[in-house]
Amino acid sequence: MPQPMTPVPDDDADRAALDDLIALLAKLPGLGPRSARRAVLHLVKKRGQLLLPLAAAMTRVGDTVRECLNCGNIATGDICAICADDRRANGEICVVEDVADLWAMERSRQFKGRYHVLGGTLSALDAIGPETLRIPRLLDRITGEGVSEVILALGATIDGQTTAHYIADQLTGVTVTSLAQGVPVGGELDYLDEGTITAALRARRAL
Amino acid sequence: MPQPMTPVPDDDADRAALDDLIALLAKLPGLGPRSARRAVLHLVKKRGQLLLPLAAAMTRVGDTVRECLNCGNIATGDICAICADDRRANGEICVVEDVADLWAMERSRQFKGRYHVLGGTLSALDAIGPETLRIPRLLDRITGEGVSEVILALGATIDGQTTAHYIADQLTGVTVTSLAQGVPVGGELDYLDEGTITAALRARRAL
Repeated sequence: MPQPMTPVPDDDADRAALDDLIALLAKLPGLGPRSARRAVLHLVKKRGQLLLPLAAAMTRVGDTVRECLNCGNIATGDICAICADDRRANGEICVVEDVADLWAMERSRQFKGRYHVLGGTLSALDAIGPETLRIPRLLDRITGEGVSEVILALGATIDGQTTAHYIADQLTGVTVTSLAQGVPVGGELDYLDEGTITAALRARRAL
Repeated sequence: MPQPMTPVPDDDADRAALDDLIALLAKLPGLGPRSARRAVLHLVKKRGQLLLPLAAAMTRVGDTVRECLNCGNIATGDICAICADDRRANGEICVVEDVADLWAMERSRQFKGRYHVLGGTLSALDAIGPETLRIPRLLDRITGEGVSEVILALGATIDGQTTAHYIADQLTGVTVTSLAQGVPVGGELDYLDEGTITAALRARRAL
């Protein structure tokens, strides 16, 4: 018997507000029904400091944030800040699965070009094809923005690599590269899987 | 060097809305900066199904939910549904630390009386004294509501038990009981700590 979300079964209709909030919060990645309940109690306790500001921040994000029409990044206008920045038109486009990956790339402060956010990876099982993934738009950008190199920064998973190979096959007239695989900085060999060690060994460099 | 919450450092001021939301969500129990970022990306993707309903549900809870003046439970009026329900005036008050504990008690559907939510446990370190914990209000209720039994359902922690003993010392003219300690239902001896086994052995019963 699944545990009901509603903690007090015979309560009155006023409880609906709390139950709605618990049910919605439980849908966030990283939260389940139990932690959503805890979070709601915390929110109610910190009504002024947390609950009301959070409601306002969500409304504001809902009102202002959308997808960049060019690259799929998060934007507050039609075009995101990176696509709007001419200094980033250096002929390089970095293809990532998700906005979280774009943010991870940006944190390294190494890449000075623009991005293209696929919004996932090709998956026959989940019926995710090239159109869903903004791949046609990527092909348009290659010519439209005078791109010379496409860097595929996709996950080292089966779906990620399938997608990378599919994209590489579609691209002509540009250099296509992908992120190097190897030992992560700070990584201890003991904790690495065989696949990573194999890749790092194959790509070994002279010191 | 702590990793900045802002994933894109050189972005424009429009990013503030997203960053505010990430910072606020990261304050929820069970979420940190990393999972808050993931949650915000998820929210932006599911703007219509999740972000806007969540903002509305939070606003609604913020507008309607407060603390019961009598027992400290969550309420939508001055008095919570349990305190307002005459059928629950059976002379028993169950003292709990927190509303989450009240909900846990209610899920068992065994207790038919009313509650008193302390809002924490006594703690010299955190300067939490009897007034902070609504203990004076509990004493008032004993006479005011004709209480015959106070059931202390506090955590089996040092602070919980200190608080239970403090309350028991204050109460005169009523039966004071506390939840039994022992092997949890479904619990395997192998995984229990010595304290629980000791308590269960001391409180053993004839079959």
